[in-house]
Amino acid sequence: MTTLRQLGEDRVVERLVGLLPRFSEAVMQGPGDDCAVLKVAGTAKLQLLKTDAVVEGVHFLGTEDMERVGWKALCRAVSDIAAMGGRPESALITVLARADTPWERLEGLYRGIARAASRFGVSIVGGETGQIHGPLACNVCLTGWVDPERVVLRSGGRPGDVLLVTGTLGGSLHTGRHLDFQPRLEEAAWLVEHFRPSAMMDLSDGLAKDGPRLAAASGCAFGLEPERVPCTAGYGLEQALGDGEDFELLMAVAPEEVARIELAWRETFPELLLSRIGALLPKSDSLPPADAPKTRGYDHFQES
Amino acid sequence: MTTLRQLGEDRVVERLVGLLPRFSEAVMQGPGDDCAVLKVAGTAKLQLLKTDAVVEGVHFLGTEDMERVGWKALCRAVSDIAAMGGRPESALITVLARADTPWERLEGLYRGIARAASRFGVSIVGGETGQIHGPLACNVCLTGWVDPERVVLRSGGRPGDVLLVTGTLGGSLHTGRHLDFQPRLEEAAWLVEHFRPSAMMDLSDGLAKDGPRLAAASGCAFGLEPERVPCTAGYGLEQALGDGEDFELLMAVAPEEVARIELAWRETFPELLLSRIGALLPKSDSLPPADAPKTRGYDHFQES
Repeated sequence: MTTLRQLGEDRVVERLVGLLPRFSEAVMQGPGDDCAVLKVAGTAKLQLLKTDAVVEGVHFLGTEDMERVGWKALCRAVSDIAAMGGRPESALITVLARADTPWERLEGLYRGIARAASRFGVSIVGGETGQIHGPLACNVCLTGWVDPERVVLRSGGRPGDVLLVTGTLGGSLHTGRHLDFQPRLEEAAWLVEHFRPSAMMDLSDGLAKDGPRLAAASGCAFGLEPERVPCTAGYGLEQALGDGEDFELLMAVAPEEVARIELAWRETFPELLLSRIGALLPKSDSLPPADAPKTRGYDHFQES
Repeated sequence: MTTLRQLGEDRVVERLVGLLPRFSEAVMQGPGDDCAVLKVAGTAKLQLLKTDAVVEGVHFLGTEDMERVGWKALCRAVSDIAAMGGRPESALITVLARADTPWERLEGLYRGIARAASRFGVSIVGGETGQIHGPLACNVCLTGWVDPERVVLRSGGRPGDVLLVTGTLGGSLHTGRHLDFQPRLEEAAWLVEHFRPSAMMDLSDGLAKDGPRLAAASGCAFGLEPERVPCTAGYGLEQALGDGEDFELLMAVAPEEVARIELAWRETFPELLLSRIGALLPKSDSLPPADAPKTRGYDHFQES
C-alpha cells in the first residue's frame, strides 16, 4: 500500500491526470497550469476555470477570524486567474461544515467572500452547503476571461528568459499575510496589456517548489540566484523559498524586454517591488547552485 | 449561538445568499436553481455552472468502492446540468484527503470520475488536491451549455401545470442505486428539444423537500397526489418522499401538453416510467393533503 504522503503531491496529481480521458478540442490548457483555458465558440475571448479549497487545520486555524478566511478563499482563486493574464467573472462556493457549527462562522466566511467579490468584480452565482463530520472546508470555483493574445501559460518560457517576481517572499503564514493578501490582479492585467511575459504563475507553494514547476512546464531548468530573492523583512532565504502562500507573481521575460518592464513598473507600481531572481536555463544545466538552501517548498501531502 | 442544525439547510442558504453583493448583468439565474445560468457575450448559448460535493460518512461510507463514489460525484452534477435542459462540458475536481490515505482510494475515485466523464462527454480540465485532517471529500465543478429557447428554470411553473416525475422514487441509499444511477441527460435533452416543460429540477433531497422547492420557486403551492407517486419496488410512500438521492427529473408541464408528452415518451423511452404525481396549485391552496405522510426529505444539516 502506497499513501499520498509517500508519493507527494506532484506525483499524486501526475498519476490522477494520467487516469483521465482525452479532452475535447475546446480545451486549450488542461491540468498543469494555474487555470484551465477553454475556447468558447462564437467569442473572441478564452474562458479560464479554477477550483481551489481551504481547509480548517491546514490552510487556517479553527480560531481564525472567518471573514479573513473567506477573503483568502476567494482571493487564492483570483490570484490564479490573474496569473494567466485574465479577469475573474463568476464564482461558485462549496462550504462543508459540521451540523453543530455556529451560524456566525459561516456568516463571517461569507462576509469575507462577499468583500473580496466586491473588490475584484466577482459575482457569486451559486454554491453548495453540505455536512462533514470533520473540519470546515470551503471550495471556490472561479471563472474568468482572457484575450487570446494576452493569455500567459506556464509553458511559454524559453532558455535565457529572465525570471522576475513581485513583492517579497516568506513569512506569509507567520505574519498572517496569507489571510489578507492582495491578489496581483491589476498588476498582471497591466503586464499583459503592455508587455508579453513568456510564462507566468502565482506563488502559492513557495518559490523552491513553484519555480521548478514553471521551468519544467517550459522545458527548462530553474536558474535561481539566491542572493537576489526579495525576502520579507524579518525573514531569511529559507523562509522566502519554502514558506509558501506568498501569492506573488513569478514571470519569465525575454532578456531584451526586462529593462523596459522594470522602468515602466517603477512608474506604475512604485510601492511594489519587482525583482530579478534568476533565469530559465537549458534543461541540461539543471543542477541547482551549490549554495542554495535545501528547502523544498510546501507539499500538500507531506506537511502536517 | 445558533447552529446550522437549528437553522436547517434552506434557511442557512437563504441567509448566506443574503450576504452576497449584487450580480453582474451577465447572471441570468443565480443561487436557487439546479445551476447558475450566465449570458456569454458573442455566443448564442447560455453557460451553466454547478458545484457539488460528496463527503465520506455523509454521502458515502468509508468502506465503499471508490470507483462508484467517483461515478456518483460527477453524475450528481451532470444530473443538475440535465435538469436545466443543458449539456455538460468541462469539470474541475477537488479532492481533500488525509496524507495517510492509500493511493488506491484516489485512483478508484478518479477511475469512476473518468468513466462518467467518458460516458457523458465531459472533459476533466483541472483540479486540486489538498490535505484534510478528516473525512475524504470530493467537490465537482461542472460547466455546461444550453440554448436560450430550451433552458428550463425551477421558476417557470404556473398554477394548473401537471407535475411529472421520471423513474421510481425511494430506496436509493438502501439499494446502492445512489452510487450507480444514470443521470437523465438524454431524457432531459429530448424533452427540451421536443416540448417545453415550464419548470424542471432533479430530485436529490427527496420529493417531500424538492417538490415544495420547485413549487415555491414558481410562486405556487405543491399539490401532491400521494397515491400516484411511483415507489421503487419494495419501498413505500414514506421512502419515496423522504429518502432522497433519486436523481430523477421532476417537471411541471402545461395541462394541454401532458398527453402528447406521455405518448411520445412511451415510444422514445419505453423502459423508463413517466408518472403524473400532482399539479402546481395557486399559492393560497398551500395546505398539504391530509393523508400525506409527515416526511420532510433530506436536510443536509439536520440528519447525521
